[in-house]
Amino acid sequence: MASHYCLIVLFALPLLFSPTAGDSRCSTHEVALVRNISDLPQDSYGIPGLSHITVAGSVLHGMKEVEVWIQTFAPGSHTPIHRHPCEEVFVVLKGSGTLYLASNSHQLEYPGEPRAFTISANSTFGVRDDDVHQVWNTNDKEDMQVMIVISRPPIQVFMYQDWYTPHPNAKLKFPCYWDEECFQSQPKIEL
Amino acid sequence: MASHYCLIVLFALPLLFSPTAGDSRCSTHEVALVRNISDLPQDSYGIPGLSHITVAGSVLHGMKEVEVWIQTFAPGSHTPIHRHPCEEVFVVLKGSGTLYLASNSHQLEYPGEPRAFTISANSTFGVRDDDVHQVWNTNDKEDMQVMIVISRPPIQVFMYQDWYTPHPNAKLKFPCYWDEECFQSQPKIEL
Repeated sequence: MASHYCLIVLFALPLLFSPTAGDSRCSTHEVALVRNISDLPQDSYGIPGLSHITVAGSVLHGMKEVEVWIQTFAPGSHTPIHRHPCEEVFVVLKGSGTLYLASNSHQLEYPGEPRAFTISANSTFGVRDDDVHQVWNTNDKEDMQVMIVISRPPIQVFMYQDWYTPHPNAKLKFPCYWDEECFQSQPKIEL
Repeated sequence: MASHYCLIVLFALPLLFSPTAGDSRCSTHEVALVRNISDLPQDSYGIPGLSHITVAGSVLHGMKEVEVWIQTFAPGSHTPIHRHPCEEVFVVLKGSGTLYLASNSHQLEYPGEPRAFTISANSTFGVRDDDVHQVWNTNDKEDMQVMIVISRPPIQVFMYQDWYTPHPNAKLKFPCYWDEECFQSQPKIEL
């Protein structure tokens, strides 16, 4: 076991929603304990170039302390410049891109010029609470796929117009795009 | 982006420790933001058939709210029967096996007969706080590899002799095997 090679294959299949799929997706009572990731809903949620899968979520699966997502970014697509009051861990599953991180966000009135870090398949990195960051698929040849872990769900996202937008002007997006459909049917979570 | 196929390859390479590797591994000040998972230490920690990699940890990487591990189980190897006061999410990356779960642990004086769930590559499942469980590679032909997410690190593990061991007789293992070497060099965490 000191050394091993492993090959991992995930299939993300097209979605086939039944008329009641929306309701069942929003009921944590109907969620199977063991779920095939290929069968989970994936959607762009109107964000160009994004495919998001909630692998384990607070609104969809009753998680209280962590969430796990898989997101795929088409070449040139990216997250907004944003921060959130929770920890985040990324594992890059496929492709490559760039992490832009303003790790001194807390000390300034605005994020400021970010540092750029190259990220690629089989790499991992973390983002601290409220550090302003952006993940960008800067590889024009292939999709970039990442597994994302966040703490303290459901996530509250503060989005910035640019790296010099004052922190008070950042726009709160809550619930986030993939929680919107089901959030109202869940017990309210105190923020 | 409605449909896509992705191939993910992780290489877990042999470890080459320098004489000071122990010290550097225990210093969160020397941790690179972006880390290649293939370069991270992997070890059995004396547990037969296990290979553990801390992808993002509290003791090794300064995480405060979540940890991410990759564990590989040789055929026939398994976790102890255990519980922990935190949430856990598994993503099966390779192979197959069985999850044994006593989800009514909280209502009894002992875990009781567990339910068995087949788990296989590309499946995901969660374990609630303090639900007694065991993950077993019951496939005699190949390793089973899982990515594990836990909340509230560092983890406190309560281990059971069998499914009828009274809860008060479960043995606390803290720090857990992979945190032992570095835990003492870190600031104490209140339990």
